[in-house]
Amino acid sequence: MSSFTPQIVKIWRERHADDVSLRMFLLTVTGFSLWTAYGWLSHSWPVTASNAVCLALATVILVLKLKFRRA
Amino acid sequence: MSSFTPQIVKIWRERHADDVSLRMFLLTVTGFSLWTAYGWLSHSWPVTASNAVCLALATVILVLKLKFRRA
Repeated sequence: MSSFTPQIVKIWRERHADDVSLRMFLLTVTGFSLWTAYGWLSHSWPVTASNAVCLALATVILVLKLKFRRA
Repeated sequence: MSSFTPQIVKIWRERHADDVSLRMFLLTVTGFSLWTAYGWLSHSWPVTASNAVCLALATVILVLKLKFRRA
């Protein structure tokens, strides 16, 4: 979970994310979505909660990447 | 697991990783090291194997990041 934070801070500060892989974060967001759904469907709140936090953080990186994408 | 691959390919092709957060991948490598150790110590081969693969891939990104770091 904590590993996403420095990347968010870095993109936000530098307003630049060209070297960050869009595909990496598309796959990361997809993966955490599936894990969150799995946690939810299996009624496991630790799985749901931890993956929902990761999903939120990875989504922030994906949105920042798209925001600062070169035209 | 698969999410790391596009980032590896991207850094390798572009020989450039300035926007990739060093701290993110230091934390990622640490996290997967701990998960791999946990899998090993709890004799769970699916946990050990999947986290060992993620550890290897995240380590490749970390090494590429350091390799292409600006002087």
